[in-house]
Amino acid sequence: ALASPAIAQSNPKVTWRLTSSFPKGLDTIYGGAEVFAKHISEATDGNFEIQVFAANEIVPGLQAADAVSAGTVEACHTVAYYYWGKDPTWALASAVPFALNARGMNAWHYHGGGIDLINEFFAGQNLVVYPGGNTGVQMGGWFRKEIKTVADLQGLKFRIGGFAGAIVAKLGVIPQQIAGGEIYQALEKGTIDAAEWVGPYDDEKLGFQKVAPYYYYPGFWEGGPTVHLMFNKAKFDELPKNYQALVRTAAQATDANMLQKYDHLNPTAIKKLVANGAKLQPYSPEILAACFEAAESTYAEMEEKNENFKKIWGSIKAFRKDYFLWLQVAEYANDTFMMQLQRGGKLG
Amino acid sequence: ALASPAIAQSNPKVTWRLTSSFPKGLDTIYGGAEVFAKHISEATDGNFEIQVFAANEIVPGLQAADAVSAGTVEACHTVAYYYWGKDPTWALASAVPFALNARGMNAWHYHGGGIDLINEFFAGQNLVVYPGGNTGVQMGGWFRKEIKTVADLQGLKFRIGGFAGAIVAKLGVIPQQIAGGEIYQALEKGTIDAAEWVGPYDDEKLGFQKVAPYYYYPGFWEGGPTVHLMFNKAKFDELPKNYQALVRTAAQATDANMLQKYDHLNPTAIKKLVANGAKLQPYSPEILAACFEAAESTYAEMEEKNENFKKIWGSIKAFRKDYFLWLQVAEYANDTFMMQLQRGGKLG
Repeated sequence: ALASPAIAQSNPKVTWRLTSSFPKGLDTIYGGAEVFAKHISEATDGNFEIQVFAANEIVPGLQAADAVSAGTVEACHTVAYYYWGKDPTWALASAVPFALNARGMNAWHYHGGGIDLINEFFAGQNLVVYPGGNTGVQMGGWFRKEIKTVADLQGLKFRIGGFAGAIVAKLGVIPQQIAGGEIYQALEKGTIDAAEWVGPYDDEKLGFQKVAPYYYYPGFWEGGPTVHLMFNKAKFDELPKNYQALVRTAAQATDANMLQKYDHLNPTAIKKLVANGAKLQPYSPEILAACFEAAESTYAEMEEKNENFKKIWGSIKAFRKDYFLWLQVAEYANDTFMMQLQRGGKLG
Repeated sequence: ALASPAIAQSNPKVTWRLTSSFPKGLDTIYGGAEVFAKHISEATDGNFEIQVFAANEIVPGLQAADAVSAGTVEACHTVAYYYWGKDPTWALASAVPFALNARGMNAWHYHGGGIDLINEFFAGQNLVVYPGGNTGVQMGGWFRKEIKTVADLQGLKFRIGGFAGAIVAKLGVIPQQIAGGEIYQALEKGTIDAAEWVGPYDDEKLGFQKVAPYYYYPGFWEGGPTVHLMFNKAKFDELPKNYQALVRTAAQATDANMLQKYDHLNPTAIKKLVANGAKLQPYSPEILAACFEAAESTYAEMEEKNENFKKIWGSIKAFRKDYFLWLQVAEYANDTFMMQLQRGGKLG
């Protein structure tokens, strides 16, 4: 029951700035930060306000974590693997090829010790980090021509993210770094042969199917990439305990919400893309197997040289093995039957 | 930056009681209510306290929603399908056979209009409801003997939940209602032939493999059952706006957390169960297909008679079709390859 009188427990006025690594046009991933800020503002009656800035409004998207680490802004919404060049351990917090899918990643983060392990590492960067979104497994990219064998990868100019790029480079791919807004033209002109972006909902807005119609899947380098909310550690530690708790609660809700939104938007988008000319193609078993071997040998090299990488990858690897054992029992059998019904036109 | 002085915005003292439908022994599902209460207490510095009571401490587990509807307690943590006897529309909010998996159910709830649709319905029961947990697809039950054909279902005494029980009854199953604590003995004595409970983590504690070793999958009647947090509508409406917002935020975090916890616990449990004698068996395509037809004909009958059922099932059905179309592209291809690696012993 509501008991008056109210005890004067105050929610102090706090205003933070959060820099996103994403442009507003990526409404679902960019929107995650707005969702997070709304949770916090509403629960505190507007006393804890987080102002969200798109990439480049304060700092460029790929410098978001640096700005938080330095205390230029209190928070950011970014993907940890953007910063793998500092230390490949960053990538583990988000996604590396052939790791976990979205549910697995969240199980590891929240109950497999993941959040503690990565915060132990990030404390050294003056950061406190929590999962703050997931796209689900991404698509494998748009290709001007079909690729079937590992030989077809040789010399292929592929716009693909940093860590994954370094792995496919082992198979002859020439990774390209191109900003989102320039991909279409580069594919059209043939400056590049292929490009990966996100998944159907985000890809559909850019019209890639007109210039590179072969739409490969899955994006095995992002089985369930964690988008992060990162906070300057000193600023986070200064927050009252109830605000720290609220940040964690809101982050977990925000994290779930992004995947839920993508899961709702992608089905409609994939249908539109196919109707507009996208040709869906699975990566061949040969290519997947070769990429897996390249990834595993990369991890083995990194484990030799990097204690943090070894510790965190060891934890993910141990869970991965059992997770994919269990997944093939009830979930996979159920999904498989439902897909058979869908293909058979039985789902209405 | 932290700006003092603090504005005296108060978090008023509120104490609520929440009755769970679960015993404490089901630590993960029962624990969901404690997780929820902790989020709320911590974010309000202990000013909004929700006291959690296990099933039977205030009311029996299957009367939790009634107690909330009547205002005996402010809140409960339950599964909406328990109450399908009042109106089968209740079951739609949680799970019906061959509907969505956990990710799909959440996508529908949070972005496909599900939460609004079900609250429109539940307002008539003086309830406000939010998703507050998910187990993922459950297992299909423990059987004393193998079942391979629809003929094997004839006369089978199966302990299975209400709504699903009514559907398999169409195929000759004789559904049994037995409390959790009595299942083992009933299976041992042969009073019943089979029983479904939850999934590996919860099932493992009860030792069913010793008396009914055939462990079938998937539990197609619970592809991704939503556990609910339900609130007395009048009490919820009395809350200050910031507390209402916090309840929603904490519910979404709690909902995600339960699945994350099961996803972490089930892999270890399934290995233990198999090591201790459980014989994993997929339901045969013949049985799945017959159960699907029985379910679809049941839904068609209910749609004829029940406007609320028709409206909500129509919404789920429309999403289900496209959801399982998209799911078979990137997610399924990625999971399939990872499972092949697991079976090939390549995941370490």
